[in-house]
Amino acid sequence: MSRDFLLSNVRPNGGPSTMVLVKDGRFAPVDAAPNINSLDVVDGGNALMLPGLVEAHTHLDKTLYGMGWYRNEVGPRLIDKIDNERAMKKELGIDPARQSARQAVLSVGHGTTHIRSHVDVDTDIGLAGIEGVMATREKYRDIVDIEIVAFPQSGVLVRPGTVELMEEALRMGAEVVGGLDPSGIDRDPKGHLDIVFGLAERFARPIDIHLHEAGELGAFALELTVERTKALGMQGKVTLSHAFCLGMQDHLAVGALIDGLREAGIHIMTTGPSSRPAPPVKRLLEAGVVVCSGNDGIRDTWGPYGNGDMLERATFVGQRNNFRRDDELQLALDVCTHGGASVMALQDYGLKPGCSADFVLVDAETVAEAVAAHPPRKLVVKKGRVTARDGRALVAMP
Amino acid sequence: MSRDFLLSNVRPNGGPSTMVLVKDGRFAPVDAAPNINSLDVVDGGNALMLPGLVEAHTHLDKTLYGMGWYRNEVGPRLIDKIDNERAMKKELGIDPARQSARQAVLSVGHGTTHIRSHVDVDTDIGLAGIEGVMATREKYRDIVDIEIVAFPQSGVLVRPGTVELMEEALRMGAEVVGGLDPSGIDRDPKGHLDIVFGLAERFARPIDIHLHEAGELGAFALELTVERTKALGMQGKVTLSHAFCLGMQDHLAVGALIDGLREAGIHIMTTGPSSRPAPPVKRLLEAGVVVCSGNDGIRDTWGPYGNGDMLERATFVGQRNNFRRDDELQLALDVCTHGGASVMALQDYGLKPGCSADFVLVDAETVAEAVAAHPPRKLVVKKGRVTARDGRALVAMP
Repeated sequence: MSRDFLLSNVRPNGGPSTMVLVKDGRFAPVDAAPNINSLDVVDGGNALMLPGLVEAHTHLDKTLYGMGWYRNEVGPRLIDKIDNERAMKKELGIDPARQSARQAVLSVGHGTTHIRSHVDVDTDIGLAGIEGVMATREKYRDIVDIEIVAFPQSGVLVRPGTVELMEEALRMGAEVVGGLDPSGIDRDPKGHLDIVFGLAERFARPIDIHLHEAGELGAFALELTVERTKALGMQGKVTLSHAFCLGMQDHLAVGALIDGLREAGIHIMTTGPSSRPAPPVKRLLEAGVVVCSGNDGIRDTWGPYGNGDMLERATFVGQRNNFRRDDELQLALDVCTHGGASVMALQDYGLKPGCSADFVLVDAETVAEAVAAHPPRKLVVKKGRVTARDGRALVAMP
Repeated sequence: MSRDFLLSNVRPNGGPSTMVLVKDGRFAPVDAAPNINSLDVVDGGNALMLPGLVEAHTHLDKTLYGMGWYRNEVGPRLIDKIDNERAMKKELGIDPARQSARQAVLSVGHGTTHIRSHVDVDTDIGLAGIEGVMATREKYRDIVDIEIVAFPQSGVLVRPGTVELMEEALRMGAEVVGGLDPSGIDRDPKGHLDIVFGLAERFARPIDIHLHEAGELGAFALELTVERTKALGMQGKVTLSHAFCLGMQDHLAVGALIDGLREAGIHIMTTGPSSRPAPPVKRLLEAGVVVCSGNDGIRDTWGPYGNGDMLERATFVGQRNNFRRDDELQLALDVCTHGGASVMALQDYGLKPGCSADFVLVDAETVAEAVAAHPPRKLVVKKGRVTARDGRALVAMP
């Protein structure tokens, strides 16, 4: 149960030091406290106060965190990684419930209050991933909100039976329809996207598609996505994750793609990848496109990196986009907070009165310093409850 | 004064657990201990043991670390940053001695045992930067080795009097001749490089040139550097830092440049920059080119990022080069250890008997995990003396 309290001496978004009232798990105007002298006071120690961090793209079901070091000897192609992963799920015994719980707790320690997780659905693992992450979502519902994307990692058309599993995942409780490289994996961009959009229409759900395809191939898939989004009136409900094609050299072509995204109200998720072409974050924001970010896979069979820290991710987004100025670092933070909140359509997100009291305290002088240095989170609060201190969640990791 | 001791239960380079003898500040065969039972034993706790980290490219003289947050509102061009920095040195009072000491201590806390620092020499600041870093080098000589590059950050030909200052810096104790974007700043690639190589020849010193120039312009400067290196017989003594031109799209052209580097024995320094074209580390290593790395500027007027951690830098080099496999992450570490040692021509570097006892202990299962997770350094030892524990140097930061 949450208790009401006053948080003194904090600097919301780097502004002047002030006092904040948390009442019934939400922010409230300080003069709304009926009996201010009877309230507990928590001293914020002049810390910077940020809204809860939003992890808008990860894979909770398949991190290897806590399972001992996985020696990666996987081949270089995308299909090598997909095939290896399906095999390793059996060989290593990657339990989606346990692993998603570990990563969720890790993320909470870093100040994440909301997670959108893609969860594999395929004819090998079936719905075990969805079930596992749903169990974690329920178990940790008081410390983090989790949204589930039913994600056909191994393709749809190339694996008959996958559509039916996707349907079942959506009935069970996955909120979002996933998709993946419509040319690269299913070898049929029209066919793949028609299925994805068809599921979204029938179940009245948003869409989030992994689009690794770069250059002109990715641009074509992006155009097909724009067409379908407009035709179905799904503006504001479709996200393209990665969208490396937006990092292509031809700036005029990228401009045309961005125009399409804006008209269709399609959101972009970027991790700020250092080894791939990347969407130009500032240009997208200036065009009015919503941009969010995520850590993607954390220490899994795909790669060894990652720790679940969305403030470090803001650093990466900043570095990738050559952000150096303070106003630019603010953009990198926005992507990792409000951008993700928009994509997840969170209704009560932010530091304003009435919003859910989800926030992070950081010892930093300015927002720019918080992004550049990403020091350990001093305090993390979810719905008015303390969930982490000094970089560690208060609940134990399973 | 160093004392002799046995380090038990450590895993050098991720190998099996073993015992290591430190004698007179150097590694020695365990059976070389005359009276093994009388020696102190330090329990390594099964930690991974790595050689001291080598920071092969930074700017000790101008970090703003510890000076309060600097609000960056600088313009986008290279010359904006150079001009702003010269002005800020006066306005902010950036003391090269104090600031280089702060960064050196920070780096020691992260396990760096050797630093190559470029130090600004120009007609405004004169030799004050060189003097400041020389004072730091002397003061901290027992905890870190510092090599100084006399660096004409503001150009040579465009600022008459700079050559004479460079000469004086080399007489005072700077070991290396620096250079900078021979077309971009001095507007005269032949003239600039003739001066740099001329100084190197007269003073019999190595060279380290900042080459940000990308694409064909950078490739031309690289070719000019190859020609001069061969003509003067300077193989093994020239480093090109950044060398973004090696990240150009034309793979055949890059191959020709790499052939030139190999023939001239020129080394490459890369930070693994996420927003710029980057030298292909694996391809360079396979061609036999020595590659080192560095953190470049840490929290200065150029940009807000950086913390002096060369193990995190290995992560960045790995991510930038899309290294995922364990054998690839080993390469990223090698660049940040032995690669830097080769570039700095360290004679007694490494974990073998006879080498200087400069090493780092990390709680990680494998080298790949150390690179991917870069956990705080458990113990740092320089010349047989403990210099840092749990991520912090034992000496206080000024």
